Amino acid sequence: MSQDASSEGDLRNTGMSLKHDREWDYELERIIDAIEERDAKRVGLQFPEGLKRRGPAVADDLRQRCDDDVTFMLSGQPCYGACDLDTYLMRRTDVFVHFGHSPMKESDKIIYVPLFSNVDPFPIMEESLEKIEGDEVGLVTTAQHMNRFDDMCDWLEERGYTVQTRKGDDRLTYEGQVLGCNYASADIPADDVLYVGGGKFHPLGLAMEHPEKNVVIADPVNNVVTLADTRKFMKQRYASVHKAMDAEKWGVIFCTKIGQGRMEIAEKILEDNENAYLITMDEVTPDRLRNFAMDAFVNTGCPRITTDDGPRFHKPMLTPQEYRIAVGDEPLDSLKFDTFHGTW
Amino acid sequence: MSQDASSEGDLRNTGMSLKHDREWDYELERIIDAIEERDAKRVGLQFPEGLKRRGPAVADDLRQRCDDDVTFMLSGQPCYGACDLDTYLMRRTDVFVHFGHSPMKESDKIIYVPLFSNVDPFPIMEESLEKIEGDEVGLVTTAQHMNRFDDMCDWLEERGYTVQTRKGDDRLTYEGQVLGCNYASADIPADDVLYVGGGKFHPLGLAMEHPEKNVVIADPVNNVVTLADTRKFMKQRYASVHKAMDAEKWGVIFCTKIGQGRMEIAEKILEDNENAYLITMDEVTPDRLRNFAMDAFVNTGCPRITTDDGPRFHKPMLTPQEYRIAVGDEPLDSLKFDTFHGTW
Repeated sequence: MSQDASSEGDLRNTGMSLKHDREWDYELERIIDAIEERDAKRVGLQFPEGLKRRGPAVADDLRQRCDDDVTFMLSGQPCYGACDLDTYLMRRTDVFVHFGHSPMKESDKIIYVPLFSNVDPFPIMEESLEKIEGDEVGLVTTAQHMNRFDDMCDWLEERGYTVQTRKGDDRLTYEGQVLGCNYASADIPADDVLYVGGGKFHPLGLAMEHPEKNVVIADPVNNVVTLADTRKFMKQRYASVHKAMDAEKWGVIFCTKIGQGRMEIAEKILEDNENAYLITMDEVTPDRLRNFAMDAFVNTGCPRITTDDGPRFHKPMLTPQEYRIAVGDEPLDSLKFDTFHGTW
Repeated sequence: MSQDASSEGDLRNTGMSLKHDREWDYELERIIDAIEERDAKRVGLQFPEGLKRRGPAVADDLRQRCDDDVTFMLSGQPCYGACDLDTYLMRRTDVFVHFGHSPMKESDKIIYVPLFSNVDPFPIMEESLEKIEGDEVGLVTTAQHMNRFDDMCDWLEERGYTVQTRKGDDRLTYEGQVLGCNYASADIPADDVLYVGGGKFHPLGLAMEHPEKNVVIADPVNNVVTLADTRKFMKQRYASVHKAMDAEKWGVIFCTKIGQGRMEIAEKILEDNENAYLITMDEVTPDRLRNFAMDAFVNTGCPRITTDDGPRFHKPMLTPQEYRIAVGDEPLDSLKFDTFHGTW
């Protein structure tokens, strides 16, 4: 699982090397203003995984600017997306700051600091043009590069492209933004979609959701241009579905995270299958599921756990649609990427 | 970490072999009565780790006895003790059953099923007598064997022993009961304490808390008698304290689990040490802490994470008292086992 900014610097499986030092805008003044305005005594700070190591330094910078009686609390909960709010900390602090993601839903309680990147996207966009086949192109990126989105559109148009952009749905904050679980911003007519951003996590999801499109990755962080290739993932999906066809006992996972609950889907499966058992949890990990004696799992929570971490689980883990294929309710060739819509 | 009934059958590090099949009393009728009485539609079932695989069968047995419109939900959250309540599930179900532990505090919301064991403790108690040095002996056990506690007392008295028992404090349900974090029931004058129960987890904690006592383990599950030997643990504790003496940046862990919060201790450390950072989390795991760039950690939550899992963390992890030793506020020879008192 790595749908956050942090994973963009994770080079383990990319064959890429890091070129640019990256810097983020932590928006300290906005946070200080909120602390003063609310006369806050307890301030919660939540960072995505790969930026947690920056947390203490950010806390130091904030402490220097605040009264001594303000306590800063760093969330130690895993965090991979805007759906991954530390609600415990949120409810027990006067100011709660969530770094690295944009709002899935507005809330007065939460200060979202998307951590805009200072990386220059244009050199790598220049390189990416030779992979774009048509003269109409969709443009998408992540929260970190949204501060340059309009410039990117202009830049492409100056080079003769018709740029198609779209604000996906309520789950997304910005026009052209993608999430690990939502690529509605790529529902545009163009056959080419240009993804500008670090890593392959988002463009691979996009290509799974839109298998007919040519997804070009312009990665300004790792300084590389590639095409999204979903073959490995799709093979794994079909293999998991086939393995699960023999399953008798099904564990139906309901994720309790604020942005990941799909109870109606879980309850429908339980109604139709007397060998299905509902299991509720926040973090869906191999360790937690190993203790249940199930033959297969269907995950109604984050689809990226299923597709990206699937092979790490001891039993096949399917998306809800893959489950319907495995039990014979839908044909195998209908297999589609699982996405999340709406908010919480 | 393994302070639950389940760990009693975990033979990985004991060199013991399992002799008796074990059976537990799931008290299904009591649960059914509660479901009917409350006309419950959603029923939550929480099992400790090693018994999670029994969950589906227990759910099946309950389903057979209930109307079709009752939905059973199995908690997939890690569970190692009575302090480990799945509060999410508890708040969202009409009946919530917590198996394997006794109440830390009464709550109408929770049905505690301690899972009394049917193992006969007396053959192994007979063997254990030769390790008891005096004629006064303290007797302690876990929730699973509480149904035989009075019999055990009588049995010892019939053999000429003066049996000393004690109900510890509010954290404990029964006279003579121990928890992984609380051995107040062994605060008795006798030099010998007989622990009847499975595994070494509890008696090792007891021996760390009461280093002057001869702690005899009569284990009816693994059918073995041993003496609690804390030397390995104590060496690890001193080694961790020594390593942490060089630490500059300290992560101060506040555990958000309902029975593990000691904020006043955490805040005291923060007040006195400007290089200390408060980190809040529910599960305290090596993975979660690895992302914080700290030199050492002090864990105000479960002491058994610190002592039993300590070596699995990438940096030294200390109890609050060990922290005070490491920073020079207390002498090294004052080192004591960390315990929890009160409820939540």
